Parts: sequence; C-alpha cells; structure tokens
Amino acid sequence: MLTLCLDAFVERIHQDIPLTAAMHWQIDQIDNQGLKASAPLTPNINDKGTFFGGSSSALMTISGWAFIKFNLEQRGLQHDVVIHKNQNAWLKPQNDTLHMSVEGSQTIDWSQVSEKLSQNKNIRIRLQCQAGHGDDVTTTMKADYAIIADR
Amino acid sequence: MLTLCLDAFVERIHQDIPLTAAMHWQIDQIDNQGLKASAPLTPNINDKGTFFGGSSSALMTISGWAFIKFNLEQRGLQHDVVIHKNQNAWLKPQNDTLHMSVEGSQTIDWSQVSEKLSQNKNIRIRLQCQAGHGDDVTTTMKADYAIIADR
Repeated sequence: MLTLCLDAFVERIHQDIPLTAAMHWQIDQIDNQGLKASAPLTPNINDKGTFFGGSSSALMTISGWAFIKFNLEQRGLQHDVVIHKNQNAWLKPQNDTLHMSVEGSQTIDWSQVSEKLSQNKNIRIRLQCQAGHGDDVTTTMKADYAIIADR
Repeated sequence: MLTLCLDAFVERIHQDIPLTAAMHWQIDQIDNQGLKASAPLTPNINDKGTFFGGSSSALMTISGWAFIKFNLEQRGLQHDVVIHKNQNAWLKPQNDTLHMSVEGSQTIDWSQVSEKLSQNKNIRIRLQCQAGHGDDVTTTMKADYAIIADR
C-alpha cells in the first residue's frame, strides 16, 4: 500500500491546480487515515504580515481533497473527488509556516468505499482539519467531500 | 463618498496579499451596501477543468474583507479587519469567470460602525456572498468578520 510516489502526486496537483503551486503547498506525510501538509508564510501573507485567511482555507481544502484522492489512487480508483461544503474558523493569527493535519471525522474503511463505488454509489466523506504551529491551533475546517461514482 | 480610487485600492491588496494577484481577483463595483468582484478561470482551474473550490472560497473571503475595508477607509478609518468564521457551499461546477456579489446579512449603518470604533468597541459584521455566472449560483459563503477597535 501507499506505493504511489508522493512527490509525483504533489507535482501533478501543482500542475493541474496552479493555485496550490502559488501557495507552495506540500504534503509532508500521508497514510490511509490522515495527511499532514504545510505551506510557508511568504506566498500566503496578508496586509498584517500574517497568514491570509483565504490561503489557509484553500490550503485546508486541497489537503482534505488530496487525502481522499491519494487513497483512492492507491487502490487503482480514478473517481473524481469534489468538495461539497465546509466550515472554517480562524482562532488567532498565524505568523509562520502553516502545518495542517487532516483526518476523517470517523475511521474510513477504504475497502467499503471501493465496494460502494463498484456498485455505482456516490460516497460522502466528512473530514476535519486542524492547522497551526505545533500544538497551537490557529485555524480549523470541517468539510464534506463527495466521491463521484459515475465516471 | 466612495472617492478612494478603486484601482489603487485593488493594486494595494494585490501587493499586500499576493495570492489575490495570483488569482487575478478584481473588484468590479462597490458601494456602502455591497461589492461585486470577479476572477477568471485559468489561474483558478482544477484537475477537472473547472474552478478550484479553494480558489472560490479564498476569493469570496477577500471580497468580503475588501467590502468592509474599503468602506472603513472611505470614512478615514484604518482599523484592521479579520475573518472569524465562515461556511461555504459548492452547489455545482463553475466553468468560467467567477462573479461574486457580497452584501451584509443586514443593512450596515457605517455611521454606527464609526461611532462604536471611536468608543473602542470591536465590531462583528456578518456578510453573505453568492458566486457564479449571472443568475446561476454555483458557490455561496456566509462569513463573520471582525473590525478590531484597538489599533
């Protein structure tokens, strides 16, 4: 499992979704239950010298999407993944590199996901993301993504 | 009123918040009760050839922020504006230039805002944004922003 080259996966996303390259988004770690990603301050800075809130929400959005997409591709599944809705909260200013941690709101059974997709059923996955520096959480996201069965 | 040069205002945001330039965000129209803004597809495209959801949420975030900031500056107020929380929904794919329309959830009394800030009171403003093409709404945001009294 998890044999897909992570660097190539990120590079493909940078090319397909150019804003992710503009934000210098990177995946630091990924497995079948979570993802850690990061982005530096400079390309994401705002008028106050801290992280632009639009950047942090976009970075959490792509991190959640990538977590699902990567795990599908690990299983040979090429289905589209789309975000349906999310809620973001900004708790305090973020002054340096943003570190994000994504996980399912519940444990994700990828075998079950694969089986439902083979039955042509769309899948809804709820994720949560905490972002900040170390244990200091500055920004959070709860998001619903859909995996589209019909390709 | 509204004598501040809009082009210079947008140019300053592009410089202070470089992601807004990367997204080619522009303000098309603004007054004391609303703002219309837009951004083209190409710099905001995703792997499916449609608008990246992270871009649309970041664009709605900066549009709401700019609506408040511009109206403060019109009144000579330089207070910081920050986003506190938001909810986004993606209803359908966006295939071309994203047009955004921002307004207050309630009519905004800027004289009252100015008076409260002079009394050193933070202000919470709730905005809503519809985005899409013409009457075809593809994405929505509800957001709470704070104007910080203490400068």
